[in-house]
Amino acid sequence: MIKVGIVGGTGYTGVELLRLLAQHPQAQLSVITSRKETGMPVADLFPSLRGHVDLAFSDPASAALGDCDVVFFATPHGVAMAQARELLAKGVRIIDLAADFRLRDTAEFERWYKIPHACPEVLAEAVYGLPEVNREAIRSARVIGLPGCYPTAVQLGLAPVVEAAAGELIERDGLIADCKSGVSGAGRKAEVSALLAETGDSFKAYGVAGHRHWPEITQGLNALGGGPVGITFVPHLVPMIRGIHATIYARLTPSGLATDFQALYEARYANEPFVDVMPAGSTPETRSVRASNMLRIAVHRPPASKLLMVLVVEDNLVKGASGQAVQVMNLMFGVDERSGLAHIPVLP
Amino acid sequence: MIKVGIVGGTGYTGVELLRLLAQHPQAQLSVITSRKETGMPVADLFPSLRGHVDLAFSDPASAALGDCDVVFFATPHGVAMAQARELLAKGVRIIDLAADFRLRDTAEFERWYKIPHACPEVLAEAVYGLPEVNREAIRSARVIGLPGCYPTAVQLGLAPVVEAAAGELIERDGLIADCKSGVSGAGRKAEVSALLAETGDSFKAYGVAGHRHWPEITQGLNALGGGPVGITFVPHLVPMIRGIHATIYARLTPSGLATDFQALYEARYANEPFVDVMPAGSTPETRSVRASNMLRIAVHRPPASKLLMVLVVEDNLVKGASGQAVQVMNLMFGVDERSGLAHIPVLP
Amino acid sequence: MIKVGIVGGTGYTGVELLRLLAQHPQAQLSVITSRKETGMPVADLFPSLRGHVDLAFSDPASAALGDCDVVFFATPHGVAMAQARELLAKGVRIIDLAADFRLRDTAEFERWYKIPHACPEVLAEAVYGLPEVNREAIRSARVIGLPGCYPTAVQLGLAPVVEAAAGELIERDGLIADCKSGVSGAGRKAEVSALLAETGDSFKAYGVAGHRHWPEITQGLNALGGGPVGITFVPHLVPMIRGIHATIYARLTPSGLATDFQALYEARYANEPFVDVMPAGSTPETRSVRASNMLRIAVHRPPASKLLMVLVVEDNLVKGASGQAVQVMNLMFGVDERSGLAHIPVLP
Amino acid sequence: MIKVGIVGGTGYTGVELLRLLAQHPQAQLSVITSRKETGMPVADLFPSLRGHVDLAFSDPASAALGDCDVVFFATPHGVAMAQARELLAKGVRIIDLAADFRLRDTAEFERWYKIPHACPEVLAEAVYGLPEVNREAIRSARVIGLPGCYPTAVQLGLAPVVEAAAGELIERDGLIADCKSGVSGAGRKAEVSALLAETGDSFKAYGVAGHRHWPEITQGLNALGGGPVGITFVPHLVPMIRGIHATIYARLTPSGLATDFQALYEARYANEPFVDVMPAGSTPETRSVRASNMLRIAVHRPPASKLLMVLVVEDNLVKGASGQAVQVMNLMFGVDERSGLAHIPVLP
Repeated sequence: MIKVGIVGGTGYTGVELLRLLAQHPQAQLSVITSRKETGMPVADLFPSLRGHVDLAFSDPASAALGDCDVVFFATPHGVAMAQARELLAKGVRIIDLAADFRLRDTAEFERWYKIPHACPEVLAEAVYGLPEVNREAIRSARVIGLPGCYPTAVQLGLAPVVEAAAGELIERDGLIADCKSGVSGAGRKAEVSALLAETGDSFKAYGVAGHRHWPEITQGLNALGGGPVGITFVPHLVPMIRGIHATIYARLTPSGLATDFQALYEARYANEPFVDVMPAGSTPETRSVRASNMLRIAVHRPPASKLLMVLVVEDNLVKGASGQAVQVMNLMFGVDERSGLAHIPVLP
Repeated sequence: MIKVGIVGGTGYTGVELLRLLAQHPQAQLSVITSRKETGMPVADLFPSLRGHVDLAFSDPASAALGDCDVVFFATPHGVAMAQARELLAKGVRIIDLAADFRLRDTAEFERWYKIPHACPEVLAEAVYGLPEVNREAIRSARVIGLPGCYPTAVQLGLAPVVEAAAGELIERDGLIADCKSGVSGAGRKAEVSALLAETGDSFKAYGVAGHRHWPEITQGLNALGGGPVGITFVPHLVPMIRGIHATIYARLTPSGLATDFQALYEARYANEPFVDVMPAGSTPETRSVRASNMLRIAVHRPPASKLLMVLVVEDNLVKGASGQAVQVMNLMFGVDERSGLAHIPVLP
Repeated sequence: MIKVGIVGGTGYTGVELLRLLAQHPQAQLSVITSRKETGMPVADLFPSLRGHVDLAFSDPASAALGDCDVVFFATPHGVAMAQARELLAKGVRIIDLAADFRLRDTAEFERWYKIPHACPEVLAEAVYGLPEVNREAIRSARVIGLPGCYPTAVQLGLAPVVEAAAGELIERDGLIADCKSGVSGAGRKAEVSALLAETGDSFKAYGVAGHRHWPEITQGLNALGGGPVGITFVPHLVPMIRGIHATIYARLTPSGLATDFQALYEARYANEPFVDVMPAGSTPETRSVRASNMLRIAVHRPPASKLLMVLVVEDNLVKGASGQAVQVMNLMFGVDERSGLAHIPVLP
Repeated sequence: MIKVGIVGGTGYTGVELLRLLAQHPQAQLSVITSRKETGMPVADLFPSLRGHVDLAFSDPASAALGDCDVVFFATPHGVAMAQARELLAKGVRIIDLAADFRLRDTAEFERWYKIPHACPEVLAEAVYGLPEVNREAIRSARVIGLPGCYPTAVQLGLAPVVEAAAGELIERDGLIADCKSGVSGAGRKAEVSALLAETGDSFKAYGVAGHRHWPEITQGLNALGGGPVGITFVPHLVPMIRGIHATIYARLTPSGLATDFQALYEARYANEPFVDVMPAGSTPETRSVRASNMLRIAVHRPPASKLLMVLVVEDNLVKGASGQAVQVMNLMFGVDERSGLAHIPVLP
């Protein structure tokens, strides 16, 4: 059994990790920490876990994280990097669901997150945890920077056309990712802006002057494309709890205009357990992946245009966060990549 | 493996049965019928099932239901009773999620459902499928009338105090069940009254002049109580998808005033895998059981009153319908009652 | 023109007061204060008011409230009573939308609100601002304690049967008010419990051990009834923004059993501009009063019971708060009671 | 007083017309028709109108529409064109909220709406009812084809940069309008796809292979631009009742790169009573225009791109339909354009 610790279990990615790991056949929940809720049984905070999780929250200071095989950080950025060295020294592997190990460039990290990076040498060895792109590197990684929710959707939506081999199909400048997310993406934080009375029955864009997921997306696409890719990323807030929908636009080159993208996407993801290329003409709904680790893609050629349009849906808390974290853990510990992730989406 | 057929798989109880049965370790989905969608792959109608259910809808007329071990009817009332005799003759057991086998008295059935009962002799042997009340009879039943969603919540909320042994604790007349349901309870039917633009961001009572679940609740409480119990049942519509919340009020007798109801309820349900008596003072949320077969109960004594108040939550599509159907199937076929029903609720 | 000041304009009752008063033909918005947002144009915080409200928030300390004819307190409890004496001394009349002047008994106030009452002599002259019960006293009042949202619905739902003249129709003990509210009732405060991801797509009871509106309801019913009335009040949270629905149950006396309640209610409210007794058999929806000052009532006799059931809907921010405040202001200043309150409900 | 008739008053644009016209100081509701609800008081179907609208639905066949000054068609397409000739002959002016008089080219109409056009000569004189573009022509029109909800948002979002004078600022090919709408846009029709249980807590694109508003948008932009404009239009469905949000992308030319678009937009709409150009950096929410006729625009230059991005919000039932219809009526009858349209948006 993989001994698992979770730092910061009181947020949405934390409770989702608990839901997934509590029934994982090869994982054993050992420790879960919360500074604020130390001593409280987890199931008192989240009654949905009654009968499934018997742990109480531990004090982060005294928690036996060093005895774990792997520790998930379901915390704000800045926490994982403060503890990484010590845990690694004890032989613990790390999966950070926040941003500490996503951006390769510490200057870029500091520009967007406004704090110095605490352990550049750990960052140097960290692996970006997107299995469909990085599977082999993940298997042997000691530290994982797990992709953000939007970057997962956008990168998987574009990988088949951005990857070097296919690079001449689209114009690499001027990509647009018009993205929409449910409010759980904002986390379980006391903020007026996420109240039901503020966000219910309404819709808006946000973060248009610059969102932290933009440099991450750009870094990922550049790596995939073997050169600079230019993308405009506009997130919007949807009055729903879970789900991300990305609507991605790319201008086609002459050779792109002659390409069968349905076939290209199906081939690219043929062996991926958690990417579903839908039949031509589909318009996937976020609910079709609710509470599951599946990501669905539909490829379109809008009428009377020279555009490729890609629609992507995922559950931001599962494939966009905790489910992907478990998928990565499975790879790191050599168990079936699908283990603990077989949930059928909940519809309606 | 239990060979399973489903009649009427295009509604919400149908798709929920599919979600549960597709991963049931002892069940094998064999046939699913739909008059309207004959020939269509199930996963085309419900993309959430892609990769999990490979069946297509069959024509009800020609479907090989007779080869199944058990057939679920996820249909409007009137369908199961038309096919029951023939299926029973072939040795197929029947679980009807509609109302054909709920009310013992055909006159009562005909008064509320406005059609004659097609097979009173089958009704005579049918068993009411509420495991917490009827477990032994269910094991050997050939035909199950599965409880309605509201009746499940109200009967389990009141069983501990209505049952004969405890009968003197409350006044058996004048019980009130103020119930609230999400809109999936209205089914997947084209009706203006269930549009998001009609039911969203609003709240109302309905069916106050007489709802079909009222005679069912009354019949069940009378049976539990060994005599007449009088209850007022008022359903309300909540702008959410899944979930039922029952707020039940009973006036206490002098001996009721001296009773420890927390202890009584905990004792009554101590061995029930799908009934959770919450700690004193709890106010259960419907989301704490979302997409799971668990039903949670909290018992209160409102201040400055002589009332007992019982709060009950369930997912109307799971413990209130398809999950309970699977629980009943497990009992009928001698497998672990919890088999295929281990889902942790989805929160948030 | 009535010169109006608002203390605490950044919450939901504040912005609703602004919506109503900005178009009131006899009112002139003069001052609006906010400690936190001093200097910010109101329309920057609430873009819905762009072009309608040109004021900026003033510092409460320096604000010219003393020049106003009336000051509304749209603040948490405790604020109005701290400023009441000084404003009254300057001839300013006060309408407090919070709880400082609701409960007649300072001991009761202190028991529920955990702070000493700062000005018992002002409380002594304060009038409870429920026009349908207290119209004449309101006209000449200097200080108004405006009813809470739930107490407005419950008292108007019960007034016709509790009032002394009608008092023998119901048993005055054991009344039940099962109430449901949208989340704007919790205010515009940064609290995890009111996030969309916490309250969306879910339903629960809360405050069952004792809610602050309970002593207010009891005080009001006692006054209406000329003697002690016993009521159990259970609030629930609905995943919607605006709206309160009260489902009220009363046991009928023999003379109640012979009473035509439809006629009684229609007669009682025949001349009320903001109470609508709906036709027999109606089940009012909260959206039928959305964004308007109307309160609708339907009266029922549940089948096979000796109960009276009253359904009441109101918009908690209008008739349950800011609209009622304007109605009261109209009475105090001798203008048409309906002035500024003609809005037709917004449906859908 | 303007004598007003409404054909088809049972849908959402119909009830919204009633809300607006019932309080319009220069309009008098004379006739409202519904084939299905003939004889029913309007306020029985829509209790929100109790006390405000006393009319009953009339039989369309016998209704005295010929005595009206203006008739609004709040019907599916095909109805207005069948009655237009006869009404015009009687001197009645027509405002069609459906599509019969939107597309100038009957072949285009027939391609998208699959029925022959019944009165091409009426179409020839019809005026497209977008006041910000067509104000003078509207004043004297006998027949108005009112813009669709999406086309209103997209055309007003692009007019300042597409209009001939400004035409060289953007590349006229490859515009993208990524649009999002609440579900009331689908109308008050019994369809499974618009149920709360289908559309709640989910998000999707639809109509991507070709939506009827696309040729209308293209026709409008071509006219504004004095030449062909190419746009891709992708609608999405938001789990909310009212509201449209358009996110529009255009590639800038070298001269566009040097343009102050904030100033350009502010100048273009400086005198428009119902278009609000928000301060630089704004991200308008749909709720900021809820239940009002205001449309708000924010102009952005996404970082590290050569794009112009325009965000537009409107209430699809008001500025996107019934409010715009009233605005047009005001122009046609020479009353203040803002008459009856002063509502402050309802927030929260």
